Amino acid sequence: MSTERHRRIVLAARPVGEPSESNFRLVEGDVPVPGPGEMLLRTIYLSLDPYMRGRMNEGRSYAKPVELNGVMEAGGVSAVVQSNLASFKPGDIVEGRTGWQSHAVSNGKGVRKIDPEAAPLSTALGVLGMPGMTAYTGLLTIGQPKPGETVAVAAASGAVGQVVGQIAKLKGCRVVGIAGGARKCAYIKDELGFDAAVDHRQPEFAAALGAACPAGIDVYFENVGGAVFAAVLPLLNDFARVPVCGLIAHYNATGAPEGPDRLPGMMRTVLSKRLALRGFIVSDFAAQHGDFLRDVGGWLKAGRIKYREDFVDGIENAPRAFLGLLRGENFGKLIVRVSPDPTRP
Amino acid sequence: MSTERHRRIVLAARPVGEPSESNFRLVEGDVPVPGPGEMLLRTIYLSLDPYMRGRMNEGRSYAKPVELNGVMEAGGVSAVVQSNLASFKPGDIVEGRTGWQSHAVSNGKGVRKIDPEAAPLSTALGVLGMPGMTAYTGLLTIGQPKPGETVAVAAASGAVGQVVGQIAKLKGCRVVGIAGGARKCAYIKDELGFDAAVDHRQPEFAAALGAACPAGIDVYFENVGGAVFAAVLPLLNDFARVPVCGLIAHYNATGAPEGPDRLPGMMRTVLSKRLALRGFIVSDFAAQHGDFLRDVGGWLKAGRIKYREDFVDGIENAPRAFLGLLRGENFGKLIVRVSPDPTRP
Repeated sequence: MSTERHRRIVLAARPVGEPSESNFRLVEGDVPVPGPGEMLLRTIYLSLDPYMRGRMNEGRSYAKPVELNGVMEAGGVSAVVQSNLASFKPGDIVEGRTGWQSHAVSNGKGVRKIDPEAAPLSTALGVLGMPGMTAYTGLLTIGQPKPGETVAVAAASGAVGQVVGQIAKLKGCRVVGIAGGARKCAYIKDELGFDAAVDHRQPEFAAALGAACPAGIDVYFENVGGAVFAAVLPLLNDFARVPVCGLIAHYNATGAPEGPDRLPGMMRTVLSKRLALRGFIVSDFAAQHGDFLRDVGGWLKAGRIKYREDFVDGIENAPRAFLGLLRGENFGKLIVRVSPDPTRP
Repeated sequence: MSTERHRRIVLAARPVGEPSESNFRLVEGDVPVPGPGEMLLRTIYLSLDPYMRGRMNEGRSYAKPVELNGVMEAGGVSAVVQSNLASFKPGDIVEGRTGWQSHAVSNGKGVRKIDPEAAPLSTALGVLGMPGMTAYTGLLTIGQPKPGETVAVAAASGAVGQVVGQIAKLKGCRVVGIAGGARKCAYIKDELGFDAAVDHRQPEFAAALGAACPAGIDVYFENVGGAVFAAVLPLLNDFARVPVCGLIAHYNATGAPEGPDRLPGMMRTVLSKRLALRGFIVSDFAAQHGDFLRDVGGWLKAGRIKYREDFVDGIENAPRAFLGLLRGENFGKLIVRVSPDPTRP
């Protein structure tokens, strides 16, 4: 223990446009000591997710920005090392918003225990965690897919998209996944059982998407924006629902792109097709957490939902992995292994 | 009767951009004779509404376009002149989609009888007709206003807007109307009891709207688009609802306007504020017609809802009046008096 160091990644500078490694800094120090009513956590797995790009900006989005020189925010799976809390004891495995760091001191608020027998620990950051719950709540509450409808999902091999598509299949829909590159497309079609996969990097993307959606699109789960949304919009059917979950194509934008101005045309489409667009973040549906764990946990146990994770080793590699995530280089839920998983000896 | 002529306004040419009187033609002929299972209607009041601009275009919007040389579509209030239908007799007053014409032959489908004792006949085209039902269903079903919330409505003195604002007041909301010119603004504030009225023609419109909405906007009833929507968007609160009912500022557009492209910025706002935008047309909520007549009819009878109509005389003046409507020149629900109202001697 005495040789262990507290390693954390802080926001060194706010990016303008695409971030680089210089926006982050690795800081080392002594492992903190928990006070009364606190516990010390050692991070096992750290979740990297696109929303973190928004936290690097100064302006408020739906949450406060990370402060300059503050630890980057993240959810993580940790082991309790020391505890001055009655409800947590050393060796407990927990999930909470512990940040890009090797250790965290917590008062237990917002931290939940994980049953290590139920599923691999890392799933608490993916299919059984925030991304899975995002997929479940956004698809079912806003998308409201009906059997026989066509559901299209962007970033379909990603942490959220892979769950969206599989739940839509379980609900009896035709599922069309949009992903970048042949490998991801093969995965969602051959491994996850989507009805079709369309590579948004191909030159004829819009035409290929149209061919994959012969009956149009009834639900579009938006994770991307940009050229993907532009190709989807003309294919939306009357009364289509669009849960707006993420817009990764725009996160590095420093201003409005050049014209023409497509906003009026989009609003006319909303009107004439009677579209319903609704933005959401997972915490809006916190009341559904029990339903989510029951349903998705059950499907996972029954082998009806699969998942794919993309692991990176070492907290020091988190910045580079995150930059790759913004470019779509990850393949599946991106997770940093920060310290050994005690359940996988 | 024998000297009576059938006068109808047909679509002479499809407009490119802003229409002019040359897009219409008045055609005269013999009054048609109803066959078996038909009746002859004489138009008393003809409704002019912004959606008709869309019907002049070739492309399909939510409804088929009017055919070239076909009678322009419209709802109207008529008297039954002759009837070969058991359920209608001469002298009955009816409402139906009879078009821009002095007479229509109908098989009775989509035609409903009006009780001339219940309310002035013209209200069947306004507060108790399609515009009123549009206001009622869009505001309550999509907007879901809660007491104490701020509801902003565009085209607030128009046929739909005046009803939206008054229902929102009845629901306990702060109501901010947006209208063009001092006269309309004074009307919605002083006569209809809106909490604030903002003139969108003033140079400092966006700032004035912000000042009128100190607690932001929770429901924005969209009738206009363009600069009005641009001013509203930054004022929308988290979880705001936007029923998209009309976009009169864009109906004459022949292509996308110059940039910058505001679509990505709008989608980011949808996400970060978790907005819900939903387009609708009144027929989507046909099942609510009974509720609408009960509620709005009751409020009208109780003097809790007022209305304003703008009458034009003569079918031959319908084109000019319609062109004025597209420029916001009408003041209240625009109605053409085509033949004498038998209830107003």
